[in-house]
Amino acid sequence: MPEDFNVTAYEVEGKVDYNRLEERFGIKPITEEMEERIRKLAGESHYLIRRKIYFAQRELNWLLDEYEKGNKFYVYTGIAPSGSMTVAHLLQFIMAQWLQEKFDADVYIQIPDEEKFLTKNDPKLTLEYVNGLAHEDALDIVALGFKPKKTKIYFDTEHANQIYKHAVRVAKRITFSTLKDAFGFSNETNIGAIFYTSTQAVGTFIKSAEEGRKIPCLVPLGVDQDVHFRVARDVVEKLGYYKPAIIHSKFIPSLKGGPKMSSSDPNGAIYLSDKPEDVVKKVNRAITGQQSTAELQKKYGGNPEKCSVCQYYKYLFETDDKKLEKIFEAERDGSMLAGEHKAALAGKINEFLEKHRKEKARLKNKIDDFILQPQA
Amino acid sequence: MPEDFNVTAYEVEGKVDYNRLEERFGIKPITEEMEERIRKLAGESHYLIRRKIYFAQRELNWLLDEYEKGNKFYVYTGIAPSGSMTVAHLLQFIMAQWLQEKFDADVYIQIPDEEKFLTKNDPKLTLEYVNGLAHEDALDIVALGFKPKKTKIYFDTEHANQIYKHAVRVAKRITFSTLKDAFGFSNETNIGAIFYTSTQAVGTFIKSAEEGRKIPCLVPLGVDQDVHFRVARDVVEKLGYYKPAIIHSKFIPSLKGGPKMSSSDPNGAIYLSDKPEDVVKKVNRAITGQQSTAELQKKYGGNPEKCSVCQYYKYLFETDDKKLEKIFEAERDGSMLAGEHKAALAGKINEFLEKHRKEKARLKNKIDDFILQPQA
Repeated sequence: MPEDFNVTAYEVEGKVDYNRLEERFGIKPITEEMEERIRKLAGESHYLIRRKIYFAQRELNWLLDEYEKGNKFYVYTGIAPSGSMTVAHLLQFIMAQWLQEKFDADVYIQIPDEEKFLTKNDPKLTLEYVNGLAHEDALDIVALGFKPKKTKIYFDTEHANQIYKHAVRVAKRITFSTLKDAFGFSNETNIGAIFYTSTQAVGTFIKSAEEGRKIPCLVPLGVDQDVHFRVARDVVEKLGYYKPAIIHSKFIPSLKGGPKMSSSDPNGAIYLSDKPEDVVKKVNRAITGQQSTAELQKKYGGNPEKCSVCQYYKYLFETDDKKLEKIFEAERDGSMLAGEHKAALAGKINEFLEKHRKEKARLKNKIDDFILQPQA
Repeated sequence: MPEDFNVTAYEVEGKVDYNRLEERFGIKPITEEMEERIRKLAGESHYLIRRKIYFAQRELNWLLDEYEKGNKFYVYTGIAPSGSMTVAHLLQFIMAQWLQEKFDADVYIQIPDEEKFLTKNDPKLTLEYVNGLAHEDALDIVALGFKPKKTKIYFDTEHANQIYKHAVRVAKRITFSTLKDAFGFSNETNIGAIFYTSTQAVGTFIKSAEEGRKIPCLVPLGVDQDVHFRVARDVVEKLGYYKPAIIHSKFIPSLKGGPKMSSSDPNGAIYLSDKPEDVVKKVNRAITGQQSTAELQKKYGGNPEKCSVCQYYKYLFETDDKKLEKIFEAERDGSMLAGEHKAALAGKINEFLEKHRKEKARLKNKIDDFILQPQA
């Protein structure tokens, strides 16, 4: 079968078939039963799970079994900064914040401020610059409603005292050969990029290591990041910790079409730093699933699955299923034309960003309460 | 020409031909003129240089030029713990301490407490165990007479906040391909061992980075460690620092014969932790350059160059050239037999170790004064 799509830790190409991705990565769907278990334990369901945006998992039933036995889990996720955060980056943090609230979970957030420095050949991405982005990201993240005492953000270069000693334990058990296959590395890959994945693994057991006991860990991540844990999860178990449970999210499509909104594509992505007029401009240029003219759209209707505007509602900006269905229906039956459709979304996004900016301003001087205490 | 000897960062085999090693490594001899320059600047010469135990160098004239211009250098060296320190390990620290005294040089000492954990397959060498050895080594080192305010020892896992951010800058500029050739790594090498060399490079510019200015650095090292800097010195310059100057020492031979005293060879090495009776026992079993019987030795004499007892005097236990010549002469002319010869050396070693133990005891509670202040 031809490789008509490609998902690696570093790029996503082609139209992603998530069923086939499950096979390739050896991950399993989140079943209706699992969804129901989560709903019962949390007291409510989450739209990202209901809509199968979080579509796959590893060890989720085990994690919930442990939780039911009173063995609480913590959440670990992260973001590798390369520019302002986009709304696509929110999927992991929206989920993490909800898990914190509903499962009383501590949340550890790795902001690896060396990763893009090591893996990108962009002279702008100096280590200092990426570190600055990392601190901006931290504020963007906590503004989503995380609890100060239960949230521990760490930066690889600033928390190296807490990370490096664990990373070398992971690293000792991973050969270059394994990474060559998993990440597509070559002999010309730099040795920092080669080592990096061992730091990403540390979050899956950092709380266990700190507290000297085995604590279950749940990692919400974009499915392209699964590879780090395919490589490391057996290692983590050999080090005496639980393998992490993982839930995998799909990619928010680019506004311009394309499989994944990327922060390196300014016109296809909405950044948390975008001004209202930028948002309006970008959304106005978005690819929709509508017919080529208003006449044809009114007559034949459009396809919400192919409409980036509809998808934005689905992934982020309309959490009410009934309202979402109305939006989709209006696209399908041709009753809502592209202009109106886009204006409404731009308004929703700007409303979110405005609230987000205010939260950031409010938390600016309180950010230290959300940072893992560095150790000398 | 057949490879009749082999010197890598991880093993030394065969009879080392230091002239040919210079060619292989692209290093140059320490000339009489350089020795004379050092003597003038220091006010005295050093037996390790006079005896060509420190035999080769990189950029030494440049370093002395800078010093004469008033641009003082600092010294960087280190030791990777795998067991108790042996007397062979002292060569670097004796030199570093002398440079500190004579050139008013700050001395940075890396004790990479992850290196042997990553590169050896010895289950005893857990990270905790090696870290314990590292602290013991620190005390062994400072007991040689280092000055508290001018000595900054650091441990990779405990000072990662100060090391890792610099190590990734080095790492970004080194490909796996380069290390494969330089270190003999394969695809089955673990990714921690692959990354490690970038931490070893950091010491060559750590003081410059801390102070935000370019400071010359002199690295005294065993010639087997030169490879780390063959790989990294150009990188260090690209990062905006001076290439380090290096002086290279030969290997103290094993007491049992063999090219290098190794800490993994308990009977061929004298450990700083050895008890007096162990020292006597090991020296009694040492290979000498003498004839097979006392009769023959008296008649034909022996060869001090092949005598590990004589070499111990030369490398460490007789710093007075005239006295050393007398010892060599007594071996050559057959007037000193092996037993007497060995008893005298064992006495000298035990005298040194006894003084060393006392210094360690005296400094035990003062060790923090010699440790680089860790940063949170």
